[in-house]
Amino acid sequence: MSTLDLSGLHGRVRATCPLIQNITNTVVQQFSANVLLAIGAAPAMLDHEADAGQFAGLADGLLVNFGTATSHQFLAADAAIRVMRQQHKPWVLDPVSVGVASYRTTRILQAMACGPSAIRGNASEIAALAGEGAGGRGVDSTDEVDAVLPAAVSLAGSTGSVVAVSGACDAIVEVHDQTVRVARVFGGHPLMTKVIGTGCSLGSVTAAYLAAARSGDAAHRVADFDAVVAAHAHFALAGQAAGAVSRGSGSFAVGFLDALQTLSSSDMAQARVQVEVRELPDVCGL
Amino acid sequence: MSTLDLSGLHGRVRATCPLIQNITNTVVQQFSANVLLAIGAAPAMLDHEADAGQFAGLADGLLVNFGTATSHQFLAADAAIRVMRQQHKPWVLDPVSVGVASYRTTRILQAMACGPSAIRGNASEIAALAGEGAGGRGVDSTDEVDAVLPAAVSLAGSTGSVVAVSGACDAIVEVHDQTVRVARVFGGHPLMTKVIGTGCSLGSVTAAYLAAARSGDAAHRVADFDAVVAAHAHFALAGQAAGAVSRGSGSFAVGFLDALQTLSSSDMAQARVQVEVRELPDVCGL
Amino acid sequence: MSTLDLSGLHGRVRATCPLIQNITNTVVQQFSANVLLAIGAAPAMLDHEADAGQFAGLADGLLVNFGTATSHQFLAADAAIRVMRQQHKPWVLDPVSVGVASYRTTRILQAMACGPSAIRGNASEIAALAGEGAGGRGVDSTDEVDAVLPAAVSLAGSTGSVVAVSGACDAIVEVHDQTVRVARVFGGHPLMTKVIGTGCSLGSVTAAYLAAARSGDAAHRVADFDAVVAAHAHFALAGQAAGAVSRGSGSFAVGFLDALQTLSSSDMAQARVQVEVRELPDVCGL
Repeated sequence: MSTLDLSGLHGRVRATCPLIQNITNTVVQQFSANVLLAIGAAPAMLDHEADAGQFAGLADGLLVNFGTATSHQFLAADAAIRVMRQQHKPWVLDPVSVGVASYRTTRILQAMACGPSAIRGNASEIAALAGEGAGGRGVDSTDEVDAVLPAAVSLAGSTGSVVAVSGACDAIVEVHDQTVRVARVFGGHPLMTKVIGTGCSLGSVTAAYLAAARSGDAAHRVADFDAVVAAHAHFALAGQAAGAVSRGSGSFAVGFLDALQTLSSSDMAQARVQVEVRELPDVCGL
Repeated sequence: MSTLDLSGLHGRVRATCPLIQNITNTVVQQFSANVLLAIGAAPAMLDHEADAGQFAGLADGLLVNFGTATSHQFLAADAAIRVMRQQHKPWVLDPVSVGVASYRTTRILQAMACGPSAIRGNASEIAALAGEGAGGRGVDSTDEVDAVLPAAVSLAGSTGSVVAVSGACDAIVEVHDQTVRVARVFGGHPLMTKVIGTGCSLGSVTAAYLAAARSGDAAHRVADFDAVVAAHAHFALAGQAAGAVSRGSGSFAVGFLDALQTLSSSDMAQARVQVEVRELPDVCGL
Repeated sequence: MSTLDLSGLHGRVRATCPLIQNITNTVVQQFSANVLLAIGAAPAMLDHEADAGQFAGLADGLLVNFGTATSHQFLAADAAIRVMRQQHKPWVLDPVSVGVASYRTTRILQAMACGPSAIRGNASEIAALAGEGAGGRGVDSTDEVDAVLPAAVSLAGSTGSVVAVSGACDAIVEVHDQTVRVARVFGGHPLMTKVIGTGCSLGSVTAAYLAAARSGDAAHRVADFDAVVAAHAHFALAGQAAGAVSRGSGSFAVGFLDALQTLSSSDMAQARVQVEVRELPDVCGL
């Protein structure tokens, strides 16, 4: 259904084992680390400002998520983002709970101004970032993916970042020159909303796929958009597989990690992904 | 066995999906969030003092647990508690490890003086709060529920809070005017003591049931006591169900989340709850 | 295969239920607490500098791991280590990510200078501590156990600590007078590298075994070396058992906790442990 080489990107994560620095909330650190290990990446969570910049020099990619940020983490993110930009390495911003409280909102907008490679959030968060919504209730999403697609396109256009909206059917948006690309990723399972960290850890996985896509020499570099779509496809397939073996939200989380880890590159061909390309003036009709 | 409408309260949590702010220890944040999602509530864990008060204005209930509190968390709790009081919203204090170290003890007593809707702890902690014990060894409980019932009654009387003592057979105590109500909740499973966070997350669930009980117009408000009992009954039933399918403490934790999530409102009628009502002078005979 | 009384040490942990203070990273706090509960110990994770020293007076053993250390944790470790030394109680240093960033490296070396009872790390970390490597990539190990055995012997000699190197086949090293003892522990499972915290929690378990070995009167004290080996043997057996029932990294983690908890003292006799004793001049030939 798509010309994206999802299998190739999956194999590239396994082959390169990208080291992903996670400045993320303490609620999901364990789950995100296990998710990264399951897909074949290497997690690191150190987040003290005295070390974060230096460590960023070693990392292949970075996730920033201010869910339970301390003052240490805010300063650590500043330092790590600076290094990522200087070294042209990918980093992902998860604007968790943007709009629900002032200090975090200010800090998220500051980080967004630094040009993340990708922004991944739920519908409420993407709407809030685009200035078109009030934000969610914590990690809860109250808007739907379809409703915020215009906001996502606007955000992708103004930031230059790939914008990913997570939901029952994920949307990944890129605006380049006057061209808009929108991928929809089908799959997943309703129990994903009952396991904390399925959204947050997808930000970490997105950073890993971006790092793998940029690995090697320039001739073999894969576009950031493709990497973000592949990360979401990997998650959607694992969610489906976990749903088939779960007896509730507890066993779903276990089955999800099992599926993330055992899914093969050829399994990635089962992903249901649709990509649309439009000229920018048409976008309002989305 | 009880005239409490446990099934109705269970359904009310699902119907209202209360947003619960958790200022809690980092050991149990993930588990507590998954427990809240499993019962149909929405968790939020942000705990920076710059945002906690503002966020409390959006939340339906609050849990305060200083298990691994940082200076950020102590200040965040001060701010969030203030808002809960101003807005007459329920909040729960978990006095984890009160008495084992001075600074936390001082902070827990300060929070207790702010009038929590409910206090939930193990026997050692409740005894220590009532000034009748030395506190436990961390999260470990060295006193028994029966032995601390007089202390729980004394604490409920002096604070006006519903006091819940967790153990092999939980006790929930309320003192109103000269009347004491004591509920005993049977069930659960010994492996609950082998999974970290089964106590701490019960504090979060208690906050969710309190928020649901107070939702809607005043005419339909359910008493705090009933809500706290229902929270414990939900846990006891899930513990029993998990015990029946576990092969050790790891699979018990998984089965416990499964059971919390799949338990229906009508299943709540299976809970074994006894309520006794006495006049205060009789209480010493408990 | 060994004259170590592994079964006896296992039973001693269960019988004494040592209280282990963990000043450790937030990624693994939940897992480490569940691991300690599974083996029959009692975990405590409080890590505020205002309370950590006082609490250390109650604890039977201490683990220090600066994986995501905050300023609170660095100060808490200083205070807790001081008490452990004064009271001759065992403490374990996990030098996680030593060498990858300057501030943590300085802090780890400071802690090492305080004389930990045991040092537990992966091959890269042990090499870095001995001044013979560059450290790993976060929790990732890039050197092999065999290759760093000379470094481990050198480190054990210079510090007086028991040094444990985790890997496909763990090595535990002690240098006493001119005699070197090296134990190799076989078993485990490759999926242990796909579950975050299997290394970090082994540090906590090592502290629990050390505390149990030193419990009771002096006549029945068991050597620290034996305790460290027994901790690793318990883990290796649980890893094997979990590997036999897992369907991927998620169910492996669940099965690992189940196995840690249900393994009996007599099962410990199944551990594959080899101990070699050499005079120091021979060591270079290892």
